[in-house]
Amino acid sequence: MKILIKNILTVQEKEADFQVKETSIYIENDRIVDIGNNEYEADVIIDGKNKLAIPGLINSHTHAYMTVFRNYADDLPFSQWLFEKILPLEDRLTGEDAYWGTMLGIMEMIRTGTTCFTDMYIFINEACRAVDDTGIRACLSRGLVGSGDDEGGMQRINEAKREIDFWKGQGNDRISFVIAPHAPYTCDDKYLLNVINFAKDYNLGINIHLSESRNEIAEIYDKYKCTPTEFLNRLGLFELNTLAAHCVYLSDNDIDILSEKKVNVITCPVSNLKLGNGIAPITKLLNRNVNVCLGTDGAASNNTLNMFKELQFVTLIHKGMEEKADVISASTGFKFATANAAKALGFDNKIGKIEVGYKADITILDIDKPQYYPRNNLLSALAYSTNGDEVNTVIVDGKILMRDNEFLTIDEEKVKYHIRNISKRLLI
Amino acid sequence: MKILIKNILTVQEKEADFQVKETSIYIENDRIVDIGNNEYEADVIIDGKNKLAIPGLINSHTHAYMTVFRNYADDLPFSQWLFEKILPLEDRLTGEDAYWGTMLGIMEMIRTGTTCFTDMYIFINEACRAVDDTGIRACLSRGLVGSGDDEGGMQRINEAKREIDFWKGQGNDRISFVIAPHAPYTCDDKYLLNVINFAKDYNLGINIHLSESRNEIAEIYDKYKCTPTEFLNRLGLFELNTLAAHCVYLSDNDIDILSEKKVNVITCPVSNLKLGNGIAPITKLLNRNVNVCLGTDGAASNNTLNMFKELQFVTLIHKGMEEKADVISASTGFKFATANAAKALGFDNKIGKIEVGYKADITILDIDKPQYYPRNNLLSALAYSTNGDEVNTVIVDGKILMRDNEFLTIDEEKVKYHIRNISKRLLI
Repeated sequence: MKILIKNILTVQEKEADFQVKETSIYIENDRIVDIGNNEYEADVIIDGKNKLAIPGLINSHTHAYMTVFRNYADDLPFSQWLFEKILPLEDRLTGEDAYWGTMLGIMEMIRTGTTCFTDMYIFINEACRAVDDTGIRACLSRGLVGSGDDEGGMQRINEAKREIDFWKGQGNDRISFVIAPHAPYTCDDKYLLNVINFAKDYNLGINIHLSESRNEIAEIYDKYKCTPTEFLNRLGLFELNTLAAHCVYLSDNDIDILSEKKVNVITCPVSNLKLGNGIAPITKLLNRNVNVCLGTDGAASNNTLNMFKELQFVTLIHKGMEEKADVISASTGFKFATANAAKALGFDNKIGKIEVGYKADITILDIDKPQYYPRNNLLSALAYSTNGDEVNTVIVDGKILMRDNEFLTIDEEKVKYHIRNISKRLLI
Repeated sequence: MKILIKNILTVQEKEADFQVKETSIYIENDRIVDIGNNEYEADVIIDGKNKLAIPGLINSHTHAYMTVFRNYADDLPFSQWLFEKILPLEDRLTGEDAYWGTMLGIMEMIRTGTTCFTDMYIFINEACRAVDDTGIRACLSRGLVGSGDDEGGMQRINEAKREIDFWKGQGNDRISFVIAPHAPYTCDDKYLLNVINFAKDYNLGINIHLSESRNEIAEIYDKYKCTPTEFLNRLGLFELNTLAAHCVYLSDNDIDILSEKKVNVITCPVSNLKLGNGIAPITKLLNRNVNVCLGTDGAASNNTLNMFKELQFVTLIHKGMEEKADVISASTGFKFATANAAKALGFDNKIGKIEVGYKADITILDIDKPQYYPRNNLLSALAYSTNGDEVNTVIVDGKILMRDNEFLTIDEEKVKYHIRNISKRLLI
């Protein structure tokens, strides 16, 4: 398939910042093969008038299946939310439910301009199937919990191995994997060593929840007399490329460790606010050159998978918290959602930028909306005035997944039908 | 004009909370005359399938003309933003520019479901004209600055009187007024007494910026040895119905005063974050039964006039700040944007609710979008999953201003044309 996007305002990295200029983008198969020349014959020509092309957004931490729990349990204290509402429901969720929940999540992500997501959950086959069916890009991980060599924990590791063996690299490499010990408080030290060995065997990175709540800090201190970050570091987990989600509570020593070990921190500001966990020390991490990325977390604690909403929050809350209007600029936040996220996945020469040779993962916004007038600084517009619904066309791996707001790979009505049925069965 | 909205999910207040149920709404002229009966002949019938009717949102603090400065000066410290960027531009703005800026602001507000706004600025005739032309509801105010009986300050008061005399009650009472001394740091004590007398003469309430930044606190303390709230209270300003915008920095005594004097606090969370001013003590104010409302502030410090974005922030940031997931629920936030705002304007039996006898100010959302699946708690959906673009139809004073996303009273292309020209002249 050859696609020519003609005369379109395009966001490209230039030195440490971005520039926006009108150009043309030519795509062959899965790659961007030329930028700046519009004299190509193509199967599809997209007119760039009143449009803005950006690198597809990367949601670096979510649980897409949880979209099925959206707006079900809100305004509750964290433990009541988790133990009384979410976990009992999760126990009743079948693989088929998880497939449709993931489909709904992917539908919302594509609708709001996300082209790649990092996911953690149990039903990996169903998640892979949804990714395969829709054409989105994803880095998946089976959530692992266990203690020592307990049967359940080891069984989960073995299942994860089989899933990876079966799915890895499918869909022209759109499907990739990391290994996901759930959190320091759900995996003990011995089990974590088993998980680390698994990751080393498979030469894969780690996806873990870290320092999300004060309770976690207290629990780990009681058990190991150190912080969750120190605990993981002692075990050697950070020797592997690690995506650590949340990182709300960090000591100065934790920040030293995360910086030195080049751990990728995935901040999920909306989830951290909504569950009453707090606000992560992002500017401190940036000052120590930590690679910061952005994630929505699951829809049960957000309640959307809209990366533009997340971008608004991450570029605004730290300004208010620190009383400094110039921290975490629009450009900085935009990098969290694009190039930094690509780097975290080891895909830094592949996705996260609109450059020749990169994968054609491109989000096109219709900017002929009131919130895009006047057109001053378009990076500012992306962070501060975009609600996500401007997204008009989404291309992943050179394939158009949504064109002029119509899904081309998803039967929207079918997804809604199944979600209604699951909701009736589980939630009412 | 008779409008029947048939079989639509509708948000109505019930006791201290809201209920959502399917019903029909019948409108004659400017009023809701029946709810629950769909056997009416009407000029317009709106099918409620996959739609949600809510009371039109009320933006309690904005400067609509500033929409022309959107995305022009971001990620800058407050003083550089104001003195180097915004004020020099404002000096060059003509009345005609302000008219088109206000038109753009109104266009965005209608697009995102706002049916009434409280505005403060200089070019009142142009703002009134825009409100009159578009059919939206507004409470306008001329921003007054001055010291003692200085000529400029007194001239501004006199101009404000003439504007009010001319415009008050026009457009079937859609246009109303308050008196707006700009802030304690831009009006001295003697000038404020002049303004208070003006408000008493005209039997009108007050709209003022209060305790927005730490600088303001320091400046007022230097001058009057008290807080801005104590200063205004001493002058007797709070004897008049007052809308106090921002209120970020409040002492316990300030909160006592605001509570006792029944001052309406307008919180503008996005603006306070973006300019690095901080986070207002909203739960403390609620604990003291202060009437809290919600505003976007101007687009130069937000950068949108989207009340759904504001609703997300106000329901999320306090949870994170206070580390309590159950503060400022979806329902509480929704009241800030509807009934509380109506009460602040003295319109509590007129707007802010969908009830028989109330003005027909209704926003209709298309909820057949991914973010509205599944449909669990729709109040949660309004606060946590709505981006504003779901708004499909907007009715103000019984007149349809937008139907199926088409503006019926605004020539969208004409507004964009003028904004492009102003932007070229002023900003580039």
